[in-house]
Amino acid sequence: MELGPPGGAGPAEPGPRLRGLRGDDRAASAAWLSEASAGRRAPSVAAVLPAGGSGERMGVPTPKQFCPVLERPLISYTLQALERVCWIKDIVVAVTGENMEVMKGIVQRYQHKRISLVEAGVTRHRSIFNGLKALAEDQPNSKLCRPEVVIIHDAVRPFVEEDVLLKVAIAAKEHGAAGAIRPLVSTVISPSADGCLDHSLERTSHRASEMPQAFLFDVIYEAYQQCSDYDLEFGTECLQLALKYCHTKAKLVEGSPDLWKVTYKRDLYAAESIIKERISQQICILMDAKEDEEHVGRCLEEMLKKELNHVKVTSGALCHAGRDLQQIILEQCYNFVCVNVMTSDFEETRKLLNALEESNLSILYPVVVISVHFLDYKLVPFGQKMEHLMQIKEFAKEVKKRNILLCGLLIYYPQDEQKLQESLRQGATIIATLIKERSFGLVGQLMVA
Amino acid sequence: MELGPPGGAGPAEPGPRLRGLRGDDRAASAAWLSEASAGRRAPSVAAVLPAGGSGERMGVPTPKQFCPVLERPLISYTLQALERVCWIKDIVVAVTGENMEVMKGIVQRYQHKRISLVEAGVTRHRSIFNGLKALAEDQPNSKLCRPEVVIIHDAVRPFVEEDVLLKVAIAAKEHGAAGAIRPLVSTVISPSADGCLDHSLERTSHRASEMPQAFLFDVIYEAYQQCSDYDLEFGTECLQLALKYCHTKAKLVEGSPDLWKVTYKRDLYAAESIIKERISQQICILMDAKEDEEHVGRCLEEMLKKELNHVKVTSGALCHAGRDLQQIILEQCYNFVCVNVMTSDFEETRKLLNALEESNLSILYPVVVISVHFLDYKLVPFGQKMEHLMQIKEFAKEVKKRNILLCGLLIYYPQDEQKLQESLRQGATIIATLIKERSFGLVGQLMVA
Repeated sequence: MELGPPGGAGPAEPGPRLRGLRGDDRAASAAWLSEASAGRRAPSVAAVLPAGGSGERMGVPTPKQFCPVLERPLISYTLQALERVCWIKDIVVAVTGENMEVMKGIVQRYQHKRISLVEAGVTRHRSIFNGLKALAEDQPNSKLCRPEVVIIHDAVRPFVEEDVLLKVAIAAKEHGAAGAIRPLVSTVISPSADGCLDHSLERTSHRASEMPQAFLFDVIYEAYQQCSDYDLEFGTECLQLALKYCHTKAKLVEGSPDLWKVTYKRDLYAAESIIKERISQQICILMDAKEDEEHVGRCLEEMLKKELNHVKVTSGALCHAGRDLQQIILEQCYNFVCVNVMTSDFEETRKLLNALEESNLSILYPVVVISVHFLDYKLVPFGQKMEHLMQIKEFAKEVKKRNILLCGLLIYYPQDEQKLQESLRQGATIIATLIKERSFGLVGQLMVA
Repeated sequence: MELGPPGGAGPAEPGPRLRGLRGDDRAASAAWLSEASAGRRAPSVAAVLPAGGSGERMGVPTPKQFCPVLERPLISYTLQALERVCWIKDIVVAVTGENMEVMKGIVQRYQHKRISLVEAGVTRHRSIFNGLKALAEDQPNSKLCRPEVVIIHDAVRPFVEEDVLLKVAIAAKEHGAAGAIRPLVSTVISPSADGCLDHSLERTSHRASEMPQAFLFDVIYEAYQQCSDYDLEFGTECLQLALKYCHTKAKLVEGSPDLWKVTYKRDLYAAESIIKERISQQICILMDAKEDEEHVGRCLEEMLKKELNHVKVTSGALCHAGRDLQQIILEQCYNFVCVNVMTSDFEETRKLLNALEESNLSILYPVVVISVHFLDYKLVPFGQKMEHLMQIKEFAKEVKKRNILLCGLLIYYPQDEQKLQESLRQGATIIATLIKERSFGLVGQLMVA
């Protein structure tokens, strides 16, 4: 397999995918990429993802890789992390027979690409071996090609970055085997037979072995073919197999804290919070171009920037901007604040909802849309305005099916500038909360600032 | 120090604090407690909490022990976990000079008891040593007594249970030293000088050393007095000091997953989610006794039980139940659904808010109050009802200062029984969401079901 287009990244100017690589690593990566851009053959890479675990440590009946995070199974996030790396050609996932249909459904629903499913074994090592066998071209009717380098990753480490995948793949090409490591969080001790401390290990001279790991395919396949039933039943460490059966000493690569493994229920909570935070980093404010509206629109934008000082707030006008909106959707912004003119009801919001429904933006993440309206007492009584705006419940119910979370926000619009600022400040707080919490239970509600 | 009253727990019938202990442990704990109930002297126990860390792994400027979780600093949760254990007489916290005032503020605001503050050293070991010195009675004007057993814990492990504290204290009394351990989550490896795998450790024969640990005071104090500057600068493991300088082999005690240490930002997210989940396990529904209201009240209760099937839902009537409410507050229920009669506005809710404000319930956790109202179209138009109920914003603003999060919920009350059930079901979903998310940003909002 050829590496995908290197996106303009040559040896002298490594592209964004190389951020975080330094010195030797950067030079090696640049060389790796330049092989492809020079038209020479770069190593073909595939990935194997054992996903047959039962998740007994979670204390929940669903295996942890299938637990929902923002209503999407955890494993789908991991697949997304792998498939966005263009130079990984095939991703082989090993799942148990009983979860095969579930897994097929996940691949289809979230439109995952380059995925092949194989049956998991009863242990992690047997699942990996099954994945390798599928890649070894000794399976009839297989569309898979035997890769030069294979990455092995965990289904429950969804936050793996391209950087570290590249680093282990490059190191594997050079050394035969490579794996990500992290500093130890706790001291490791060795107990004596009577349950007392025998000795504690020097923390600085040990590391935690994490995932991903990568191997020359021939090395790890050979190791699995050679290894004993005991290894397949009770072993956990692929690097150890490569060492033991192929005398290949793995290169160790420092990984980031992102490599953590979802092990306990608390890790699912952490994963959900991290994902929510990541998709809340950009807000798009859409408003029409009328002058007085624009004033409050701009003020609201300023307030939001203050309230969410790390968030990128962009604004555009829907009326002359089908194209702008397409661009924003392409940039994967998952948060929209739609400022409606006082008299025109949900017109702007409807346009936005239509555009979102036409895009595929909400397939992977729930998209928050906040329909903002202003109340001028002198024009319309509050109760009447509220009653009118309650139709948002019906829109919300409809678009929720498409993973779009719609809420309304009615902001008082007093003539007094100071009071207006206070209303807008409250409005910004409510918007920030709705985006941050991304709550399915409150869709269709009309908040008042 | 004498152990506190054992709460009726004798050797034959260990009390609730011994749940989770088995066999030998249970017998030992029962003996420990019976010493006190028999009037004999049980060992005096103190705790030392090093809290001088800078939290550099978090990637945030605030040291992690002071990071807010539900707007309360993490260390306050850990202090709460220790101070609820009546047989720990003194809790010595080591904080840096620059955080001393912050820490004093925390102790005062959250009404922590039995806390003494000492100055932290520049390393964890030096901080612990300072804590031990304060307990050793060689400080002038100290109110602290030299304990027989000292527990050392981390400020950033807030979920420690009494069970494991008791287990390590008992084991320390017997063996001189004891520490909690956990299975390893990752394989531990040893790198060679060239950054390659030298060997990986047998996972089953190693454990992660966690906190709490406990020691005979004389053992650990002696160890700290003997140990080298190198140990104080670079060591991490107290058990190792006891072994090296006092030849005391620590007893290892299996801990629960709750012992995890808040290390990264994701752990703060996890901690917040766990705490939110824990305080959402009980909901109290309060309603007046009028017959037709009671019908919908009961229906709502049933819906809530369905929606939150693991949650204990209790109900009571406010009008004849100042005492009932006191009981519920004593049971530390942090969630109240107050069902108001159609015609009486916020009367019930106000009574509840007054009772909550008089109690200290919201000092440690934000209390959610949902004021439920019903709308019968035939009696009052929707807009008028909404406008009237918007005064909830003012109440909410007032009680938010006391850490009470008030929201309103207006439920349609159609004559059609099926439609009513649907309204109630939506209402239950909204209530469940408000309780689960415990959002500060949405207080004072009026939701509609």
